[in-house]
Order: sequence, then C-alpha cells, then structure tokens
Amino acid sequence: MHRVLYPGRFQPFHKGHLRVVERLLREFDEVVIVIGSAQEGFTCNNPFTASERIEMIDYVLKNNGISRDRYWLIPIPDIRMPLAWTTYVLSMVPRVDAVASGNPHVVKIYDWIGFKTIKLNLFSPSEYNGTIIRRRICNGMEWKNLVPEQVARYIESINGVERIREVCGCGDHRD
Amino acid sequence: MHRVLYPGRFQPFHKGHLRVVERLLREFDEVVIVIGSAQEGFTCNNPFTASERIEMIDYVLKNNGISRDRYWLIPIPDIRMPLAWTTYVLSMVPRVDAVASGNPHVVKIYDWIGFKTIKLNLFSPSEYNGTIIRRRICNGMEWKNLVPEQVARYIESINGVERIREVCGCGDHRD
Amino acid sequence: MHRVLYPGRFQPFHKGHLRVVERLLREFDEVVIVIGSAQEGFTCNNPFTASERIEMIDYVLKNNGISRDRYWLIPIPDIRMPLAWTTYVLSMVPRVDAVASGNPHVVKIYDWIGFKTIKLNLFSPSEYNGTIIRRRICNGMEWKNLVPEQVARYIESINGVERIREVCGCGDHRD
Amino acid sequence: MHRVLYPGRFQPFHKGHLRVVERLLREFDEVVIVIGSAQEGFTCNNPFTASERIEMIDYVLKNNGISRDRYWLIPIPDIRMPLAWTTYVLSMVPRVDAVASGNPHVVKIYDWIGFKTIKLNLFSPSEYNGTIIRRRICNGMEWKNLVPEQVARYIESINGVERIREVCGCGDHRD
Amino acid sequence: MHRVLYPGRFQPFHKGHLRVVERLLREFDEVVIVIGSAQEGFTCNNPFTASERIEMIDYVLKNNGISRDRYWLIPIPDIRMPLAWTTYVLSMVPRVDAVASGNPHVVKIYDWIGFKTIKLNLFSPSEYNGTIIRRRICNGMEWKNLVPEQVARYIESINGVERIREVCGCGDHRD
Amino acid sequence: MHRVLYPGRFQPFHKGHLRVVERLLREFDEVVIVIGSAQEGFTCNNPFTASERIEMIDYVLKNNGISRDRYWLIPIPDIRMPLAWTTYVLSMVPRVDAVASGNPHVVKIYDWIGFKTIKLNLFSPSEYNGTIIRRRICNGMEWKNLVPEQVARYIESINGVERIREVCGCGDHRD
Repeated sequence: MHRVLYPGRFQPFHKGHLRVVERLLREFDEVVIVIGSAQEGFTCNNPFTASERIEMIDYVLKNNGISRDRYWLIPIPDIRMPLAWTTYVLSMVPRVDAVASGNPHVVKIYDWIGFKTIKLNLFSPSEYNGTIIRRRICNGMEWKNLVPEQVARYIESINGVERIREVCGCGDHRD
Repeated sequence: MHRVLYPGRFQPFHKGHLRVVERLLREFDEVVIVIGSAQEGFTCNNPFTASERIEMIDYVLKNNGISRDRYWLIPIPDIRMPLAWTTYVLSMVPRVDAVASGNPHVVKIYDWIGFKTIKLNLFSPSEYNGTIIRRRICNGMEWKNLVPEQVARYIESINGVERIREVCGCGDHRD
Repeated sequence: MHRVLYPGRFQPFHKGHLRVVERLLREFDEVVIVIGSAQEGFTCNNPFTASERIEMIDYVLKNNGISRDRYWLIPIPDIRMPLAWTTYVLSMVPRVDAVASGNPHVVKIYDWIGFKTIKLNLFSPSEYNGTIIRRRICNGMEWKNLVPEQVARYIESINGVERIREVCGCGDHRD
Repeated sequence: MHRVLYPGRFQPFHKGHLRVVERLLREFDEVVIVIGSAQEGFTCNNPFTASERIEMIDYVLKNNGISRDRYWLIPIPDIRMPLAWTTYVLSMVPRVDAVASGNPHVVKIYDWIGFKTIKLNLFSPSEYNGTIIRRRICNGMEWKNLVPEQVARYIESINGVERIREVCGCGDHRD
Repeated sequence: MHRVLYPGRFQPFHKGHLRVVERLLREFDEVVIVIGSAQEGFTCNNPFTASERIEMIDYVLKNNGISRDRYWLIPIPDIRMPLAWTTYVLSMVPRVDAVASGNPHVVKIYDWIGFKTIKLNLFSPSEYNGTIIRRRICNGMEWKNLVPEQVARYIESINGVERIREVCGCGDHRD
Repeated sequence: MHRVLYPGRFQPFHKGHLRVVERLLREFDEVVIVIGSAQEGFTCNNPFTASERIEMIDYVLKNNGISRDRYWLIPIPDIRMPLAWTTYVLSMVPRVDAVASGNPHVVKIYDWIGFKTIKLNLFSPSEYNGTIIRRRICNGMEWKNLVPEQVARYIESINGVERIREVCGCGDHRD
C-alpha cells in the first residue's frame, strides 16, 4: 500500500488541484489531502472554513469517479513553526511514503527532515491559483471555468461569492 | 443526510467505542469520529499518535463491515480552551447535526453553545475504558478481550505493548 | 437586563466608536466593549497597549456622562482562530444578547454560530477609522478632530504621537 | 489615584476573597480583580466560565455596598509561561501600583520583575479555599456558609452544584 | 566535528547530569545541552528559570575543566506537541549527529523520525533525580551531596532552598 | 561581570551586526545574542533556520577573534505578545544589565517594563539591512560585500542563494 501526502489551503479547490489528485492516484494507492490553515474561515485570504473545504473536495472527488477508499481529507490548523510543522503533520495523518507539493517552501522543509518529496510541476499556475480566483470573484470577473463545476455549485450553495465580496470589501456587489 | 460527531481520544479504540459507532450508524447516515489530543503520542497517557489511531480505527471499521462512505476520521490537536474548542471542532469537520458523547464535560460545553447533544450511556464503562486498558497492559494483565481483535493486532504490529511499558515505566517487561 | 457585545481594536478610540456606544446604550442596558488584539502594543498597527486603551475609553465615557454601571471594558488577546474566537469571547464576558459590529468578518462568524448579530452602519467610515488616524498622526496631519478630546489628551499624556512616529518610522518628527 | 492588582481563579469567589477585596479597598482607590484561567469552564478544577465568574463577583460586590467605580473585573486566559505572564497581565489591565496575592508563586514572579508586591495573610486558608469548597460540593457536604450568599444564589441559578457533581464524577447526586 | 544533543529540564543540574556530559564529551567534540520547559520558573516542579539553569550549568562545567568551546546551552520553551517537538528542537540548535537521553519518551520520538538516538544508562537514577532532590530540599533532608558543589553554591546564592519550600508549600521552613 | 542583551533576527548576520557586537564588547564583558523568530526557516522573510543562524554567527565571531567566553547565542521562538515577550526573553537568557537595539519597538517595550535600554545608532542602516540584502540576493545583485566573508561562505555551503530565490519566487535563477 502506497500513500502520498498532498497539503494545500484549497481556497478554493480548483482544476489544478484536481489534476494533481488524479495524477497522484495513478502512482499511489491513496492520497492524503491535508487542508492547511484549517482554523481559518470568513476572512479575505481564507474565506472558506475547513468544514466547507472538506465538503467541497469530497463532493468534487466523488463526482469525478474517485472512491472514498482512495483519499483522506485531514484538516490541520496552523502552528506557525515551519520546521516543527513537518513532523506535526506526519504525526496526524495515516502513514505516507512521500509528500507532493508545488510549493517550494513545503518541498524544502520536508527535504530538510530527510523525507521523500515530489516537486509538482503545476499546470498553468498563474491561472489555476487560489489568490487569482478569489481576486476574480472579488472583481466580478469570470471564475467558474477555473474550478470543477461541483466547486462552483458548492460555493453558490453557501453564498460564497457574496461572502468573499463582503469580507474582502470588494465594492459594489454585482454578480 | 444526517451526520453525528463523536469525539474521543481512543487510546486505544476499544469495544465500547465500536458499540457506540455501530449504534450511531443505526440513527445517522455518517459518523464523524474526532480523534482528540491529536498532537500527542509516545507518552504514558497518550501512547499512540493520531496517525496510528486513524489507521487502527480504519482497520477495525473496515473489518466490521462499515464502509468508508459512512465514517470520517478527523484528528484535532488540543487547544486547552474548552469553550472555544466547541466551535473550533465544528469549523473543521463536515457539518454535523449533533454531538454524541459519554463524557459529561463534552456534553455540557456543547449544551452551553446551544448545539444538539446526545448523552451516551456507555456499556460497562469501568471495564471498556482507555485508562484501565493501558493500566492492564502496563501490569501485564489480560487486555485483548477488551478491544476489537484488529486493535490488538495493530498494537502488536507497532510494538505498542512494549512502548506503553517503557514510557509508563512499568517495571519488568513481561509479555 | 439586556447587554450587547461591541468588539474592536480601538487603536485609538475615535468619534465613530463613541457614536456606536451611545447608540447601543439607547437600545441596551449595558454594552460590553471587547478590546481585541489585547496582547499588542508599541507596534505600528497596534501602538497602544490594552492597558492604555482601557484607560483611554474609560476616560472618554466617564467624561461623556456614561456611568461605569453601563459599560464593561474587557481585553481579549488574539487566538488567530476566527471560528473558535466566537465562543472564546462569549465565554469570557458577562452574558450578552447580541453582538454589534461594523466589520463584516465579525458579523459573519457570529452568524455562523447562530448568535444574534447587529450589523452597524458606521458613520463616515473612511474618516473615522483607526488606520487613517494613525497614518495622519504619522504624516504630521491634523487628527485631533477625529477623536474625542479626552483621547487626544490621553495620547498626549503618554507621548503617543512620538511613539507612533518612532515605531512606524515616520521620518522627521514634527508635531 | 492608587490601584492594586488582585489575581485569582475564583472557582468560586468565597468569603476569604471578599475580605481581601474589602481590605484592599481600605488602602487603595480601586482594585483590579484579574480572573485567571479565564479560558476554562465546565471542568472539575474550573467548573465556572470567566463569564460566570465575572457575573458572580459583580453581584457580590454590588450587594456588599461596593461601587463599580472601585473595582475592575478583567478575565485573563492562561499562557503557561509564568515569567512572561507577569508583564502579559500588566499590559492588559489599567495601570496598578502593586500586586496583592496570597499565592507565593505569584508574589515571587512579580518580585522577580521588580514590581511592588503585597503578600496577603489569608484568613483561615484551609477553610476558605476553592479546592476545599468544590470538594465539599462534590461530597454533598455543607459549603454555602463559606461563600457570600450571593455566590450561593448565583451557583444555584446556573445549576452549578449539579454541574460540579457531573464533571467531577461525584457519584450519587444528592443535594 | 561531531555534536550530540542532550535535552533535560535540569531542575536542578545534578551529579548524574554531569557524568552524562563528561561521558558524551569523550565520544563527541561538542555537546548541545537543551534546557527544556525553558518558559517555566518559580513553580514547585520547575523552581528555577532557564536563565538560572543556564548560569548554574555554565558555572559547573567551567569549574570542572570543560571549555565553553565544547558545550552549548540552549533554552527551549515547551510546545506540548511531542512529535512536532523533535524537529522544533533540531531546527533551533547547531547541527547534531545524535540525541542522547535516559528518558524513553525522548528516545522513542526521535526514533520515530528516524534520527540517531543514544539510550543512556543513567547512574543510580533513583538517587540522582531532580524530583527526588527537590523533595529532599522540601523536607529539609540532605541533598547537597547529590549535586556538584557549584550547584549547591548557586542555589544558595539565589535563596533557592527557601524558594522551593515556599512555592511547594513545604510546611515549616527549617534549613 | 557585565552583560548586555542584543536581540535580532539575523536573516542574515551582516557587517552592521558585527559592528554592534564589537562595540558592545568594548563596554560589556559578554554579549547575549538573541536570535528571534527562531522557529522560522525556509520562508522568504526568514530563509535561515535558527540552527543555521547560530552556526553562521559562531563562525563569524570565532574568525573575528572573539572568544566563545564572551558571547552567547540563544534562539527564542516568537510568542506574538510584545509586552509579555520582554520578560519571556529575560527569563531565558543569562542575567543581563541592559538591552541594546536599533529597533525602536524593542527599545520602547523594554523601557515600558523599566529595564535599562541602549538605543543603537546603526551604521548605514539602509544598506546593512537584512531585507535589503535578501532582496539583492533575490534580484541577482551584489550582496557579499554587505556581510562578513564567513557569512557569504556559510550561505554558499548551504545553497542559501538558491534557497532564497526559490522560496521568494525570484524568477530566473542566475547566480
């Protein structure tokens, strides 16, 4: 049994993230998706709670033909100590063989403890990018094509667009 | 869809816990098992890491005919602020309709925030009890009949008996 | 007896804050003023300690004909967990019936836990605004007309203008 | 204007505490009552929330002829760093001239930072003692004579006796 | 250059500790002494501050012919997350090749991350033991023969005996 | 014996820092160098771990003729409570007579607790400045003349230039 750890904030979970999960599941039996900054929610940088991000990702994966037997959704609150964070995470997830990330900081800190890392080449990272997507939502621009359709639907079901515009102070709230 | 939250430390997961999960799954579609004190491990009171407790419980449930579609395993590190803890947990698990616990403290703090609680009547709590089981392991007494057989097997696979005896300073280490 | 919670950072307490307190005291018997980021002080964003903010607000209210029987001043240090923060605060203040705030984040997190919220329409928020006032102090512009006269006097008594200019690195220190 | 700091946990506020406050108000203009372990509640050692302890003490003092102009009730959550705690507290309360305590640890840490301390000689400390009072409540023994009558009434109004018995596991619940 | 990590609380530093340092310096070029629970002080279990423990150990080692070129004294405050603690410590000390400890918990958590460990066989651990020494001080029994003479002298210079008796509530204070 | 505290982040240790240490050692017997934000590493603002910063500074000082008998290197992780931080630090370092800093925030908070402070006039602070140096490294500009040659050598030995460029996302990685 081979498992891989895939940490992220997923604010929101977008098509780039889905591609990574699909790719990792071609190489590994299971992927452990760690939802970072899990204590956050209803702020401009972290509009969605971990609760919502878990539901959102579960909804996407299930509807993309991925069985719950193949993924874990584990929320991890911040501790703001990057080197301690490496083992903090490993101690709270089912045992994994490697960590996969597109974030050089994450790759380097796991390299530092001597844990196997996979540096992901992200697909069109300037587009499939949480910060960009939140900014597009704020500015009333098109964003739904950047996320799986289940994410767009989930965000609507919780009034997520209005939420982002309010907590980010995005000016007039056209949809 | 109805979900219930079931928090515990599960040091280790015993037959009393399994009965609770089975009972809750007769009333609810899904149970969210929160593994508390998740940052702990290798101490006398918390010998098993959250990583191990997740694997242990998953192994038990799967082998007792419960599909992964019906349970969630969510580790939650301590914050040592009981009233803040209530919403801290709720913000990091898939939405639930109620909290079930045999621990009066847990029931009372969720009552305090006005969340629906289910006070569990535990089955033989003086026997099916983590503290008692760890003490029996320490003293070299019989303990395997108190846990599902998968837990006994899992604990052996990680040398858990020897671990408890060492970190608790249990004297001579007979098995 | 009806009480309302009014959280803020009050860096410094300005005329907009005073108007809110006066308005709330027309509807409620008592207002519980929560001084957030209470652990801070002597930084550019949080120049005043909670100790000073308590004294400053007490001095203003007393001199505006509001009896100490009608307000509470409660410092609350940050925990950087917004959803947990809701009940953290409620557990440390005298019981309140509602939370009043002009900050959409605060309103939304209390809505999330199902607590009664009052969304304040702030009076001229682009002017009566702590960030703006601190910036005006930094730049040597007029600011005293934006705060109650007791606040201006209090800030002078602690050399607050010089403090802001030093910790914010405001260049030449003209008054 | 002279103020004194008086920290405690007040689980619950008893007649010994009231005597201290009265004595301090003979020497000082105002007393700042710091309610420690403010983040706690609904546990055996800390059954009452800070919210309840604030209300309880306010109710006692008001009914013992002490005006709100002469006392402050400030909840302070634990940081578990005793030396840092000294200035942490001082930074969050109105300026005080001295710290008064019957607890040698508290006196010593404030001596360590060179702050003026008053070592209180407590009145009958083996009797007027929170731990003893909670134990008497647990065991169904007489306890109301040890607290001001307002405290007894307040505890009853929140079902505090039943609460202590449940969270402490006090066996059969006779009142 | 070979370095070894040697963590402890050193409340106080006793002859058993000194033997360990001397032994480790026969095998390694430098020893990194980590002073744990560094945020503590003036409590019964942790009577001495990290500041005092650093001075005490430095005074002993210097007077036992060990040059400052061969040891490091690094205070580390608690984080109460044992698995995260492993890398937390490693990230804050000069690079080491192994960890040496007589505490099975410490050995096991470093084994868990795959770091080289040395399990120390302590010399007469029931005697050369901080808890025992503090208890002997509390009870007015002989204790100075259990610590290096510099430690006894240092403790006296800071009135450490009286401190322990007061914060532990040791009854009548005979010396 | 006179000691002075000198806190900083030292990301990296530059010639301005070395000048300060040399100046302080003309007035004091020993300097206690506190390495702040010690829990950090591998981020854009804090690229070097405390472990590396300790080694880097030790290497510089030793090679500039300063004996280890005259300096202490003490890592201190952040607590994000500025006023509590003052005594937090003092409790974890060998006793000092004063604090020296070029940072007005640090000077003011130690003034606040009544501790002796030395306001340093930094040498060419717009040049000998960690932020500037990291930015120059990021942009592929000359930076080695701003740090002692041992620092440049140390950073190279750990691939620090490449590290900064990766974690800061500095675009093309020319050296």
